[in-house]
Amino acid sequence: MAKPNRSKSRSRNKPETKSKKRPSHKKLRIALAGFGTVGRSVAKLLCQEANDSFELTHIFNRNVSRKKVDWVPSTVRWTESIDEVLSSDADIFVELVGGITPAGEWIRRALRAGKSVVTANKLLIAESGPELVELAGEMRKRLEFGASVAGGIPAIIGIREGLAGDRLYKIAGVLNGTCNYILTKMEATGASFETALEEAQELGFAEADPRDDVEGFDARAKLVILTQAGLRTRVRSEQIPCWPISSVEAVDFAYARELNCTIRQISLAKKETENGLTVHAFVRPALVPVSSLVAHVEGSKNLVMATGQYAGQMVFSGFGAGGDPTAVAVISDLYSIARSGDAPSGHLPAAVEVPQEVSGQFTAPYYLRFVVKDRPGIIAAVATVLARYGIGIDAVLQKPGFPRSALPFIITLETCTSAMLGCALQEINRLDFHVEPVLCMPILLD
Amino acid sequence: MAKPNRSKSRSRNKPETKSKKRPSHKKLRIALAGFGTVGRSVAKLLCQEANDSFELTHIFNRNVSRKKVDWVPSTVRWTESIDEVLSSDADIFVELVGGITPAGEWIRRALRAGKSVVTANKLLIAESGPELVELAGEMRKRLEFGASVAGGIPAIIGIREGLAGDRLYKIAGVLNGTCNYILTKMEATGASFETALEEAQELGFAEADPRDDVEGFDARAKLVILTQAGLRTRVRSEQIPCWPISSVEAVDFAYARELNCTIRQISLAKKETENGLTVHAFVRPALVPVSSLVAHVEGSKNLVMATGQYAGQMVFSGFGAGGDPTAVAVISDLYSIARSGDAPSGHLPAAVEVPQEVSGQFTAPYYLRFVVKDRPGIIAAVATVLARYGIGIDAVLQKPGFPRSALPFIITLETCTSAMLGCALQEINRLDFHVEPVLCMPILLD
Repeated sequence: MAKPNRSKSRSRNKPETKSKKRPSHKKLRIALAGFGTVGRSVAKLLCQEANDSFELTHIFNRNVSRKKVDWVPSTVRWTESIDEVLSSDADIFVELVGGITPAGEWIRRALRAGKSVVTANKLLIAESGPELVELAGEMRKRLEFGASVAGGIPAIIGIREGLAGDRLYKIAGVLNGTCNYILTKMEATGASFETALEEAQELGFAEADPRDDVEGFDARAKLVILTQAGLRTRVRSEQIPCWPISSVEAVDFAYARELNCTIRQISLAKKETENGLTVHAFVRPALVPVSSLVAHVEGSKNLVMATGQYAGQMVFSGFGAGGDPTAVAVISDLYSIARSGDAPSGHLPAAVEVPQEVSGQFTAPYYLRFVVKDRPGIIAAVATVLARYGIGIDAVLQKPGFPRSALPFIITLETCTSAMLGCALQEINRLDFHVEPVLCMPILLD
Repeated sequence: MAKPNRSKSRSRNKPETKSKKRPSHKKLRIALAGFGTVGRSVAKLLCQEANDSFELTHIFNRNVSRKKVDWVPSTVRWTESIDEVLSSDADIFVELVGGITPAGEWIRRALRAGKSVVTANKLLIAESGPELVELAGEMRKRLEFGASVAGGIPAIIGIREGLAGDRLYKIAGVLNGTCNYILTKMEATGASFETALEEAQELGFAEADPRDDVEGFDARAKLVILTQAGLRTRVRSEQIPCWPISSVEAVDFAYARELNCTIRQISLAKKETENGLTVHAFVRPALVPVSSLVAHVEGSKNLVMATGQYAGQMVFSGFGAGGDPTAVAVISDLYSIARSGDAPSGHLPAAVEVPQEVSGQFTAPYYLRFVVKDRPGIIAAVATVLARYGIGIDAVLQKPGFPRSALPFIITLETCTSAMLGCALQEINRLDFHVEPVLCMPILLD
């Protein structure tokens, strides 16, 4: 439990400053890998705002010479040699390169070299977080990844530390700013998915290849990390089903409004312990009430909800991406290490469970949207199948003004299991009046 | 920077348990003062959920015998002697008695006796927080008060640690659940203030003497604590002006709706550094857009917004009061001490500034509601005074259906300083057509 003596192994190759008001504490030395949007913001904050506590010593990037900027102190070493960074006397390695390889190996090497690590790498933490945290523990160093989820929103510290006293059983949220931008644009303007996506791309809110965002993979990595931090449960990305938001059309927002709802990409993980530990998890477009906080997350913002047995539902919301907000999360992690030191105390038992089952099955009321070549008997045919599976119909809505050759209408269902509904939909989709497959979204009321 | 050796001074007067799976870490010993609603919840969580890390050793209360419950382990010592608690071998003193005296003295004694302290005491922390934190630092112990603001919402840790990397300049929120219950009730049902208050009292959401809540004093203490944690600025409660919510009437909600707004009790503190450090702060009913997150905080919930230069606006929302949510905050603070140990590291410079000025002045668009004995020329008279002070009128609204002897109407103003408006209102209130004084509320658009 004693802290390693931080002063014995340091050699300072920077001359002491001559300021009279030199702080009495020792600055932590920071090596930064990756000088893109977030890296630049981190460097800026380190040099402008946090230079009382930290000293930026190294900036690593490929082809580093084209990256150099004049506002970084001349004492900072620019390098394209990761070996130089990892063998330096930096106290903390900040990894902002992203991707699984080689970032993961660099982080392992940094920890083994006695450095604490701060990273914003959601893919890596989703895949290897527990292993890396364990390695950090063995080395009595810290691994912090607050910036890997929801950018500037202090969701991980809020959940893991601020709600440590609760027993959380549900995490849900809007975790992808690109999808939220597209969906709120469609909601506000009646634009099609394609038009909203193009605009998001023009404004830099979406990548040229938007698959990771649109299909839910980006949000899923963040959900894996939040599930581990909040539900203390280990799930793997590939266990969580994703549905793309690209199947949502303008007409769905019009129908959602009739139901006092709107549509958001929701990432959700819920723990059930009745028959062994099961985690229900998905990333998918869903209907949410217009009166809910989640319906009021605008544009590229994010929102994280954590529900506990004792404190009820807590909500964290703010800017989930971008250079400066993400840099705030990185710097906050650095302050956490500065405050609490390297080694976690021995008072806390580590307790992360591996669930017996991770399931995309989810019991809820559902929204079904059909586009059909109209003829008599369609609703009767659908209702007959649903009845056979014991699924009750709540409402049928059909807005006027659409051609009979491609007529959209919706059916909302009473609460049912997605498994039962899946069987029914397989049969319904085989009926011969469809112009496109039925779109199915859960209606999330809490 | 070395941690005190925690093991040398402990004597365990409880026999070791015989469980085979005894955890390898040492449990922290907890003495609890105050066994009311929150105290009972804390004890329950300590015994049911957190007994891997903590051991409840003492429960202090006046007339303790009437408080005894059978679900607390027999090893817990029930006592009405605070001296026995403070001289015990407990590691952490949890103060849930409330009030300035004698709680403050007990906390000082506990710290001097080498115990860390966790408290939910907002009045005491608002008044003496900095002094107590300093004493804790001198004793190399911890003082945590996450439960003193917004109950279960991890606002303090979220702001102080999760946003440590930002430069926050504004804190605003809905910090009093009683007022929020009353105002949202008036909003939903059209009830008068008196009726909504009575209902809140019947349901236990408001005290028999509701002054502390209704006049804003409770929210003000929380605002002082958040201002210190987030803006790193020391203000005192008596420097912050409060306006009661009791002057809000049902008709104000009707007019607010016309403006796409609703009404909430808003606590706000904003830092300005242009001419020395000024903090603008108030607790008052205000108009907020129906599209804002703050308009969607229902019933007795709380919401805290922190706005920073880099990460923008962050929102934390959830249950701000009640036994279990507040207990979660207490237990989370205990875990924080368990995790990071007693002594804060030496890497962080303490930096709390005392502002040159704390001002209730606030520049915003304003809402004025008049109740007048109707006659021609009233609006002209008001407009003349406003024009003399250079204040522009945005809109005049008058709903039908009210008697001419007590006719309510509103005027909304373009952005102006509250100082200028105050002078104008003094003059306007002297005009002879008023049935009651003009109600003035800022319209907060962000």
